[in-house]
Amino acid sequence: MSYIERTMKSEKVYEGKVLNLRIDTVELPDKKYSKREIVEHPGAVCIVPITSDNKIYLVNQYRKSIDKEILELPAGKIEIGEEPKECAIRELKEETGLTANKYEYMTEFYTSPGFCNEKIHLFFARELEEGIATPDIDEYIDVKTYSLDELLHMIQIGEISDGKTIIGIQMINATFASKNE
Amino acid sequence: MSYIERTMKSEKVYEGKVLNLRIDTVELPDKKYSKREIVEHPGAVCIVPITSDNKIYLVNQYRKSIDKEILELPAGKIEIGEEPKECAIRELKEETGLTANKYEYMTEFYTSPGFCNEKIHLFFARELEEGIATPDIDEYIDVKTYSLDELLHMIQIGEISDGKTIIGIQMINATFASKNE
Repeated sequence: MSYIERTMKSEKVYEGKVLNLRIDTVELPDKKYSKREIVEHPGAVCIVPITSDNKIYLVNQYRKSIDKEILELPAGKIEIGEEPKECAIRELKEETGLTANKYEYMTEFYTSPGFCNEKIHLFFARELEEGIATPDIDEYIDVKTYSLDELLHMIQIGEISDGKTIIGIQMINATFASKNE
Repeated sequence: MSYIERTMKSEKVYEGKVLNLRIDTVELPDKKYSKREIVEHPGAVCIVPITSDNKIYLVNQYRKSIDKEILELPAGKIEIGEEPKECAIRELKEETGLTANKYEYMTEFYTSPGFCNEKIHLFFARELEEGIATPDIDEYIDVKTYSLDELLHMIQIGEISDGKTIIGIQMINATFASKNE
Protein backbone atom coordinates (compact mmCIF):
# COMPACT_ATOMS: atom_id res chain seq x y z
CA MET A 1 0.00 0.00 0.00
CA SER A 2 1.27 3.46 -0.84
CA TYR A 3 0.99 6.25 1.71
CA ILE A 4 2.34 9.24 -0.19
CA GLU A 5 1.40 12.57 1.38
CA ARG A 6 0.31 15.21 -1.11
CA THR A 7 1.61 18.70 -0.38
CA MET A 8 -1.30 21.17 -0.08
CA LYS A 9 0.80 24.13 1.07
CA SER A 10 4.50 24.69 1.72
CA GLU A 11 5.81 27.58 3.80
CA LYS A 12 9.51 28.44 4.02
CA VAL A 13 10.15 29.51 7.61
CA TYR A 14 13.92 30.01 7.45
CA GLU A 15 16.70 29.98 4.86
CA GLY A 16 20.19 29.75 6.29
CA LYS A 17 23.80 28.81 5.70
CA VAL A 18 23.63 25.15 6.75
CA LEU A 19 19.90 24.44 6.60
CA ASN A 20 16.43 25.66 5.66
CA LEU A 21 13.20 25.02 7.52
CA ARG A 22 9.83 24.63 5.86
CA ILE A 23 6.36 23.63 7.07
CA ASP A 24 4.32 21.51 4.69
CA THR A 25 0.59 21.03 5.03
CA VAL A 26 -0.05 17.53 3.71
CA GLU A 27 -3.07 15.46 2.78
CA LEU A 28 -3.03 12.06 4.50
CA PRO A 29 -4.37 8.83 2.97
CA ASP A 30 -7.70 9.38 4.83
CA LYS A 31 -7.93 12.88 3.20
CA LYS A 32 -7.36 14.67 6.50
CA TYR A 33 -4.63 17.32 6.70
CA SER A 34 -1.55 17.37 8.91
CA LYS A 35 1.58 19.54 9.19
CA ARG A 36 5.16 18.39 8.66
CA GLU A 37 8.11 20.42 9.95
CA ILE A 38 10.98 19.71 7.58
CA VAL A 39 14.64 20.63 7.89
CA GLU A 40 16.25 20.87 4.46
CA HIS A 41 19.94 20.01 4.41
CA PRO A 42 22.23 19.78 1.35
CA GLY A 43 23.64 16.41 2.42
CA ALA A 44 27.02 15.50 3.80
CA VAL A 45 29.88 13.07 3.51
CA CYS A 46 31.61 11.01 6.17
CA ILE A 47 35.00 9.41 5.69
CA VAL A 48 36.66 6.42 7.39
CA PRO A 49 40.38 7.14 6.90
CA ILE A 50 42.16 3.87 7.66
CA THR A 51 45.87 3.07 7.55
CA SER A 52 47.41 -0.19 6.29
CA ASP A 53 47.71 -1.36 9.93
CA ASN A 54 44.04 -0.56 10.70
CA LYS A 55 44.44 2.72 12.55
CA ILE A 56 41.50 5.07 11.99
CA TYR A 57 41.64 8.86 12.17
CA LEU A 58 38.90 10.63 14.12
CA VAL A 59 38.36 14.29 14.94
CA ASN A 60 37.38 15.71 18.29
CA GLN A 61 35.44 18.95 18.11
CA TYR A 62 33.08 21.11 20.10
CA ARG A 63 29.51 21.10 18.78
CA LYS A 64 27.30 23.98 19.80
CA SER A 65 24.08 21.96 19.31
CA ILE A 66 24.96 19.63 22.18
CA ASP A 67 27.25 22.09 24.00
CA LYS A 68 30.14 19.65 24.29
CA GLU A 69 33.05 18.04 22.49
CA ILE A 70 32.38 14.88 20.55
CA LEU A 71 34.55 12.37 18.74
CA GLU A 72 33.55 11.91 15.08
CA LEU A 73 34.82 10.54 11.83
CA PRO A 74 35.86 13.37 9.50
CA ALA A 75 32.74 14.70 7.79
CA GLY A 76 31.23 17.77 6.26
CA LYS A 77 28.46 19.39 4.31
CA ILE A 78 28.32 19.09 0.53
CA GLU A 79 28.77 22.48 -1.18
CA ILE A 80 26.63 23.61 -4.11
CA GLY A 81 27.58 21.75 -7.27
CA GLU A 82 29.97 19.43 -5.45
CA GLU A 83 30.01 15.66 -5.99
CA PRO A 84 30.07 13.55 -2.79
CA LYS A 85 33.52 12.09 -3.56
CA GLU A 86 34.94 15.53 -4.29
CA CYS A 87 33.49 16.70 -0.97
CA ALA A 88 35.04 13.70 0.82
CA ILE A 89 38.49 14.51 -0.60
CA ARG A 90 38.13 18.18 0.40
CA GLU A 91 36.78 17.59 3.90
CA LEU A 92 39.34 14.92 4.75
CA LYS A 93 42.16 17.26 3.70
CA GLU A 94 40.69 20.29 5.51
CA GLU A 95 39.95 18.54 8.80
CA THR A 96 42.92 16.17 9.10
CA GLY A 97 45.49 17.18 6.46
CA LEU A 98 45.22 13.66 5.01
CA THR A 99 45.09 12.79 1.35
CA ALA A 100 44.08 9.30 0.27
CA ASN A 101 45.14 7.49 -2.88
CA LYS A 102 42.11 5.26 -2.74
CA TYR A 103 38.50 6.15 -2.03
CA GLU A 104 35.81 3.48 -1.82
CA TYR A 105 32.13 4.35 -1.70
CA MET A 106 30.58 2.42 1.17
CA THR A 107 26.92 3.38 1.51
CA GLU A 108 24.55 6.29 2.07
CA PHE A 109 21.91 6.83 4.71
CA TYR A 110 19.49 9.38 6.15
CA THR A 111 20.31 10.67 9.62
CA SER A 112 16.78 11.65 10.72
CA PRO A 113 14.16 11.05 8.02
CA GLY A 114 11.34 11.84 10.47
CA PHE A 115 12.00 15.57 10.08
CA CYS A 116 15.17 16.12 8.01
CA ASN A 117 16.31 15.15 4.51
CA GLU A 118 20.02 15.04 5.36
CA LYS A 119 21.70 12.16 3.53
CA ILE A 120 25.24 11.12 4.43
CA HIS A 121 27.50 9.49 1.84
CA LEU A 122 30.03 7.23 3.52
CA PHE A 123 33.50 6.56 2.07
CA PHE A 124 36.53 4.50 3.07
CA ALA A 125 39.81 6.33 2.47
CA ARG A 126 42.95 4.20 2.15
CA GLU A 127 46.62 4.60 1.22
CA LEU A 128 46.79 7.74 3.30
CA GLU A 129 49.41 10.47 3.20
CA GLU A 130 49.74 12.96 6.02
CA GLY A 131 49.75 16.71 5.40
CA ILE A 132 48.70 20.03 6.87
CA ALA A 133 45.07 20.48 7.99
CA THR A 134 43.28 23.64 6.86
CA PRO A 135 40.00 23.77 8.81
CA ASP A 136 37.38 26.45 8.19
CA ILE A 137 37.96 29.62 10.18
CA ASP A 138 35.18 28.64 12.59
CA GLU A 139 36.33 25.02 13.01
CA TYR A 140 38.59 23.94 15.88
CA ILE A 141 39.55 20.31 15.59
CA ASP A 142 41.89 17.79 17.27
CA VAL A 143 42.85 14.77 15.18
CA LYS A 144 43.34 11.42 16.93
CA THR A 145 43.98 7.83 15.78
CA TYR A 146 42.56 4.63 17.24
CA SER A 147 42.72 0.97 16.30
CA LEU A 148 39.58 -0.60 14.87
CA ASP A 149 39.33 -2.86 17.95
CA GLU A 150 39.54 0.13 20.29
CA LEU A 151 36.76 1.87 18.39
CA LEU A 152 34.50 -1.19 18.40
CA HIS A 153 34.96 -1.37 22.17
CA MET A 154 34.29 2.38 22.52
CA ILE A 155 31.01 1.89 20.63
CA GLN A 156 29.99 -0.97 22.93
CA ILE A 157 30.61 1.07 26.08
CA GLY A 158 28.98 4.22 24.69
CA GLU A 159 32.14 6.34 24.35
CA ILE A 160 31.35 6.99 20.70
CA SER A 161 28.05 8.85 20.60
CA ASP A 162 27.93 10.19 17.06
CA GLY A 163 25.60 8.22 14.81
CA LYS A 164 27.53 8.46 11.52
CA THR A 165 30.73 7.47 13.35
CA ILE A 166 29.10 4.35 14.81
CA ILE A 167 27.85 3.44 11.31
CA GLY A 168 31.23 4.03 9.64
CA ILE A 169 33.13 1.92 12.18
CA GLN A 170 30.55 -0.89 12.15
CA MET A 171 30.49 -0.89 8.34
CA ILE A 172 34.25 -1.14 7.98
CA ASN A 173 34.29 -3.94 10.55
CA ALA A 174 31.51 -5.79 8.68
CA THR A 175 33.41 -5.40 5.40
CA PHE A 176 36.62 -6.76 6.92
CA ALA A 177 34.73 -9.65 8.56
CA SER A 178 33.05 -10.63 5.28
CA LYS A 179 36.41 -10.58 3.43
CA ASN A 180 37.96 -12.89 6.02
CA GLU A 181 35.17 -15.42 5.75
CA MET B 1 42.52 21.84 24.55
CA SER B 2 38.98 23.06 25.10
CA TYR B 3 37.10 24.76 22.29
CA ILE B 4 33.84 25.73 24.00
CA GLU B 5 31.90 28.38 22.11
CA ARG B 6 30.40 31.09 24.31
CA THR B 7 26.90 32.17 23.33
CA MET B 8 26.80 35.93 22.71
CA LYS B 9 23.23 36.03 21.39
CA SER B 10 20.51 33.43 20.86
CA GLU B 11 17.53 34.00 18.60
CA LYS B 12 14.56 31.63 18.46
CA VAL B 13 13.47 31.50 14.80
CA TYR B 14 10.72 28.88 15.08
CA GLU B 15 8.91 26.89 17.79
CA GLY B 16 7.00 23.90 16.52
CA LYS B 17 5.43 20.55 17.34
CA VAL B 18 8.45 18.35 16.61
CA LEU B 19 11.33 20.84 16.66
CA ASN B 20 12.48 24.39 17.34
CA LEU B 21 15.08 26.35 15.40
CA ARG B 22 17.44 28.88 16.95
CA ILE B 23 20.40 30.87 15.70
CA ASP B 24 23.24 31.35 18.17
CA THR B 25 25.95 33.95 17.73
CA VAL B 26 29.03 32.38 19.31
CA GLU B 27 32.49 33.54 20.30
CA LEU B 28 35.18 31.26 18.87
CA PRO B 29 38.49 30.44 20.61
CA ASP B 30 40.20 33.22 18.56
CA LYS B 31 37.55 35.70 19.90
CA LYS B 32 35.91 36.09 16.48
CA TYR B 33 32.17 35.59 16.17
CA SER B 34 30.30 33.02 14.08
CA LYS B 35 26.66 31.89 13.75
CA ARG B 36 25.31 28.42 14.51
CA GLU B 37 21.94 27.26 13.19
CA ILE B 38 20.61 24.79 15.72
CA VAL B 39 17.62 22.47 15.47
CA GLU B 40 16.29 21.65 18.93
CA HIS B 41 14.67 18.24 19.21
CA PRO B 42 13.30 16.58 22.37
CA GLY B 43 15.09 13.30 21.64
CA ALA B 44 13.77 9.98 20.50
CA VAL B 45 13.87 6.26 21.11
CA CYS B 46 14.51 3.42 18.70
CA ILE B 47 13.63 -0.20 19.45
CA VAL B 48 15.02 -3.48 18.07
CA PRO B 49 12.11 -5.89 18.66
CA ILE B 50 13.60 -9.37 18.26
CA THR B 51 11.90 -12.77 18.58
CA SER B 52 13.44 -15.86 20.17
CA ASP B 53 14.31 -17.12 16.65
CA ASN B 54 16.01 -13.83 15.67
CA LYS B 55 13.27 -12.27 13.57
CA ILE B 56 13.24 -8.49 13.81
CA TYR B 57 10.20 -6.25 13.33
CA LEU B 58 10.60 -3.19 11.11
CA VAL B 59 8.12 -0.57 9.98
CA ASN B 60 7.74 0.78 6.48
CA GLN B 61 6.39 4.32 6.31
CA TYR B 62 6.28 7.33 4.04
CA ARG B 63 8.46 10.22 5.21
CA LYS B 64 7.61 13.64 3.86
CA SER B 65 11.16 14.96 4.39
CA ILE B 66 12.56 12.59 1.75
CA ASP B 67 9.28 12.16 -0.18
CA LYS B 68 9.41 8.37 -0.14
CA GLU B 69 8.79 5.26 1.92
CA ILE B 70 11.60 3.99 4.09
CA LEU B 71 12.14 0.90 6.20
CA GLU B 72 12.98 1.70 9.82
CA LEU B 73 13.12 0.14 13.24
CA PRO B 74 10.16 1.27 15.36
CA ALA B 75 10.99 4.67 16.82
CA GLY B 76 9.46 7.88 18.04
CA LYS B 77 9.84 11.20 19.72
CA ILE B 78 10.01 11.45 23.50
CA GLU B 79 7.02 13.32 24.94
CA ILE B 80 7.33 15.96 27.68
CA GLY B 81 8.10 14.35 31.02
CA GLU B 82 8.46 10.88 29.51
CA GLU B 83 11.37 8.57 30.35
CA PRO B 84 13.12 6.95 27.35
CA LYS B 85 12.08 3.42 28.38
CA GLU B 86 8.48 4.49 28.88
CA CYS B 87 8.59 6.08 25.42
CA ALA B 88 10.05 2.87 23.93
CA ILE B 89 7.22 0.79 25.43
CA ARG B 90 4.61 3.25 24.11
CA GLU B 91 6.06 3.65 20.62
CA LEU B 92 6.58 -0.09 20.11
CA LYS B 93 2.96 -0.76 21.07
CA GLU B 94 1.58 2.11 18.95
CA GLU B 95 3.53 1.33 15.78
CA THR B 96 3.55 -2.48 15.82
CA GLY B 97 1.06 -3.63 18.47
CA LEU B 98 3.91 -5.48 20.18
CA THR B 99 4.54 -5.61 23.90
CA ALA B 100 7.85 -6.89 25.23
CA ASN B 101 8.46 -8.57 28.56
CA LYS B 102 12.11 -7.61 28.50
CA TYR B 103 13.67 -4.28 27.57
CA GLU B 104 17.45 -3.85 27.46
CA TYR B 105 19.07 -0.45 27.13
CA MET B 106 21.67 -0.66 24.36
CA THR B 107 23.20 2.76 23.79
CA GLU B 108 22.43 6.35 22.90
CA PHE B 109 23.76 8.53 20.11
CA TYR B 110 23.33 11.88 18.36
CA THR B 111 21.95 11.74 14.82
CA SER B 112 23.44 15.02 13.50
CA PRO B 113 25.43 16.91 16.13
CA GLY B 114 26.65 19.41 13.51
CA PHE B 115 23.31 21.22 13.62
CA CYS B 116 20.84 19.25 15.76
CA ASN B 117 20.73 18.07 19.38
CA GLU B 118 18.53 15.03 18.69
CA LYS B 119 19.67 12.09 20.82
CA ILE B 120 18.32 8.60 20.16
CA HIS B 121 18.08 6.05 22.96
CA LEU B 122 18.34 2.53 21.60
CA PHE B 123 16.66 -0.48 23.24
CA PHE B 124 16.41 -4.20 22.56
CA ALA B 125 12.91 -5.57 23.12
CA ARG B 126 12.62 -9.31 23.74
CA GLU B 127 9.99 -11.85 24.78
CA LEU B 128 7.50 -10.22 22.45
CA GLU B 129 3.74 -10.58 22.43
CA GLU B 130 1.69 -9.54 19.42
CA GLY B 131 -1.26 -7.18 19.74
CA ILE B 132 -3.16 -4.44 17.97
CA ALA B 133 -1.21 -1.42 16.65
CA THR B 134 -2.60 2.04 17.43
CA PRO B 135 -0.58 4.52 15.34
CA ASP B 136 -1.06 8.27 15.63
CA ILE B 137 -3.83 9.62 13.40
CA ASP B 138 -1.23 10.99 10.96
CA GLU B 139 0.91 7.80 10.90
CA TYR B 140 0.45 5.12 8.23
CA ILE B 141 2.68 2.16 8.86
CA ASP B 142 3.26 -1.36 7.50
CA VAL B 143 4.94 -3.81 9.87
CA LYS B 144 7.32 -6.43 8.43
CA THR B 145 9.68 -9.02 9.90
CA TYR B 146 13.13 -10.02 8.66
CA SER B 147 15.84 -12.35 9.91
CA LEU B 148 18.97 -10.73 11.35
CA ASP B 149 21.02 -12.20 8.46
CA GLU B 150 18.65 -10.72 5.88
CA LEU B 151 18.95 -7.30 7.51
CA LEU B 152 22.75 -7.43 7.66
CA HIS B 153 22.76 -8.21 3.95
CA MET B 154 20.26 -5.41 3.25
CA ILE B 155 22.60 -2.98 5.05
CA GLN B 156 25.57 -4.15 2.95
CA ILE B 157 23.71 -3.64 -0.33
CA GLY B 158 22.20 -0.30 0.72
CA GLU B 159 18.57 -1.45 1.02
CA ILE B 160 18.41 -0.09 4.56
CA SER B 161 19.01 3.64 4.36
CA ASP B 162 17.88 4.85 7.78
CA GLY B 163 20.80 5.65 10.09
CA LYS B 164 19.26 4.57 13.42
CA THR B 165 18.13 1.29 11.82
CA ILE B 166 21.65 0.52 10.56
CA ILE B 167 22.99 1.22 14.07
CA GLY B 168 20.34 -0.90 15.81
CA ILE B 169 20.92 -3.91 13.55
CA GLN B 170 24.71 -3.64 13.70
CA MET B 171 24.59 -3.27 17.50
CA ILE B 172 22.42 -6.33 18.04
CA ASN B 173 24.69 -8.29 15.72
CA ALA B 174 27.80 -7.14 17.62
CA THR B 175 26.16 -8.08 20.93
CA PHE B 176 25.29 -11.56 19.68
CA ALA B 177 28.79 -12.01 18.21
CA SER B 178 30.47 -11.03 21.50
CA LYS B 179 28.25 -13.45 23.46
CA ASN B 180 29.18 -16.32 21.14
CA GLU B 181 32.90 -15.72 21.52
